[in-house]
Amino acid sequence: MHVLILGAGGMIGQKLVARLAADGAVAGREIGTLTLVDVEAPPVPPAFSGTAARIAADISDPATAERLVGERPDLIFHLAAIVSGEAEANFELGYRINLDGTRHLLEAIRLAHGATGYTPRLVFASSVAVFGAPFPERIGDTFFTTPLTSYGTQKAICELLLADYSRRGFLGGIGIRLPTICVRPGRPNKAASGFFSNILREPLVGQEALLPVSEDVRHWFASPRAAVGFLLHAAGIDLSRVGPRCNLNMPGLSATVAEEIEALRRVAGDRAVALIRREPDPVIDRIVAGWARDFDARRAVGLGFAAERSFDEILAVHIEDELGGVVPGQAA
Amino acid sequence: MHVLILGAGGMIGQKLVARLAADGAVAGREIGTLTLVDVEAPPVPPAFSGTAARIAADISDPATAERLVGERPDLIFHLAAIVSGEAEANFELGYRINLDGTRHLLEAIRLAHGATGYTPRLVFASSVAVFGAPFPERIGDTFFTTPLTSYGTQKAICELLLADYSRRGFLGGIGIRLPTICVRPGRPNKAASGFFSNILREPLVGQEALLPVSEDVRHWFASPRAAVGFLLHAAGIDLSRVGPRCNLNMPGLSATVAEEIEALRRVAGDRAVALIRREPDPVIDRIVAGWARDFDARRAVGLGFAAERSFDEILAVHIEDELGGVVPGQAA
Repeated sequence: MHVLILGAGGMIGQKLVARLAADGAVAGREIGTLTLVDVEAPPVPPAFSGTAARIAADISDPATAERLVGERPDLIFHLAAIVSGEAEANFELGYRINLDGTRHLLEAIRLAHGATGYTPRLVFASSVAVFGAPFPERIGDTFFTTPLTSYGTQKAICELLLADYSRRGFLGGIGIRLPTICVRPGRPNKAASGFFSNILREPLVGQEALLPVSEDVRHWFASPRAAVGFLLHAAGIDLSRVGPRCNLNMPGLSATVAEEIEALRRVAGDRAVALIRREPDPVIDRIVAGWARDFDARRAVGLGFAAERSFDEILAVHIEDELGGVVPGQAA
Repeated sequence: MHVLILGAGGMIGQKLVARLAADGAVAGREIGTLTLVDVEAPPVPPAFSGTAARIAADISDPATAERLVGERPDLIFHLAAIVSGEAEANFELGYRINLDGTRHLLEAIRLAHGATGYTPRLVFASSVAVFGAPFPERIGDTFFTTPLTSYGTQKAICELLLADYSRRGFLGGIGIRLPTICVRPGRPNKAASGFFSNILREPLVGQEALLPVSEDVRHWFASPRAAVGFLLHAAGIDLSRVGPRCNLNMPGLSATVAEEIEALRRVAGDRAVALIRREPDPVIDRIVAGWARDFDARRAVGLGFAAERSFDEILAVHIEDELGGVVPGQAA
């Protein structure tokens, strides 16, 4: 099986690639070829024994999709996107990458389908940013998408395209609306949601972190490991069980910033918590106020998707996957 | 005030133009200029005393939007679309006109806004085809859009774009989801919903009409006169009352084909009803099975939009507006 990953150099992309390389199989089939695409050529994990291609490409160029689809990958993970803060700051860039880039991919698949019957599985990483306030206490599976960011708008549009192209039979599409990923490893990026991770990740290693919103802000989370699990599950799921409503709210954890901080305190003590510095940011505050806080993701749960149930679990995943199982300054 | 109407040659477009010409004003302001655009140059009503331009144009050409927006219309009605049956039969044409055409218009406005602060009101004709079965008994204002046609997909995408461009302040957008218009005057077009009108309009003038679905099919209707009323109300409404959720289910009448037929019987007798010939069509049946049947359109009602409450009313509007108030073969 040939697996193509768009956005393979991103945080989730790299973790997905590492997992695919380690497993050597996905959706019950051996992986012969991995094609990894991003703005800069993504690294290939040394563990992978099959054929791998690393490609630097601009997905807003229609020729990119044509070239990649020309290799007839059986399974495509589409994770490439301009993140929320940047798509809000740069209107044209967000639409060019997040909307046009996806449409070029879908169009290249449609034309290949027409020519040869090619019908790949396409797993699309969407986001809870497709929803916009005001919300019900818990967002159900049939709540409407009225995004309050351009990023959320672009994701919602791509979901509609994915569903229509799937309904037409050009591809087997499934869109998974990722919760905010926490704890994000690495350094802060331009996502407005970055602080949710920063206030855990940085203090865990003795660094200061800024908290731009109040502690009672509630949001919807899953770990990077859970996100990779969603993608792999979506790659193998029987799409006849999913049906035409192929864009799904993923399960996750609804928690407040205060709950995050208390989980941090249990793991790393008051000294870590003291490294969180309050610095209110009205721009971040306004963006986050438009985001979803809690979900009743029963369709996805019924289809076998699973996430963490507490911030202690989320922190444990981070410490295991990113810190070698050890909190610095504490006994292992 | 300069009013631009895209799709001015269509059924609703012509009725809207006639009403604007007769009123000489809209949204409380005098109409100085009317620009009427369609695939073929639309007629200008002789009643209109201002400046009028009739333009034949292809809205899928970006230069069209640039040219039209270059005249800085204050109010734009965007009614131009490939209808549902045709958009389903011709995938590329539907996306080119219904999606790309709208996006070109929005982009031309955005660029003009950036250059000069131009911020027109844009009234977008959307459709209940943005919804797809299965439905709740009545569709509420927060039900999600999971269309089961490419036409519905294209309308749902344009709604998302309209909301984002409005949120950004490039224009003042409002999308109105029209019920199925009944009784459509004229001859059948390629809309899959045509039979809902045919089975009333044709028998009223002594002609046979085909009924491709069963009598218990329930659907959601408003008259052409009500549709024009929605558009005019949307043109003048205070958008701060509407807010960012600017795409609204219009009020309408939920009725079955059997109820249509009984209203026809009350107005034109058994002889008219006998002209309805059952000819089941599985393609039409499958498309219609995916359509909405009833709505709780309380937001729109609260905002002052109004429609008919019975098929007798809808038939009375048709007889008054299309047949000079007389049912042929009956005393006036």
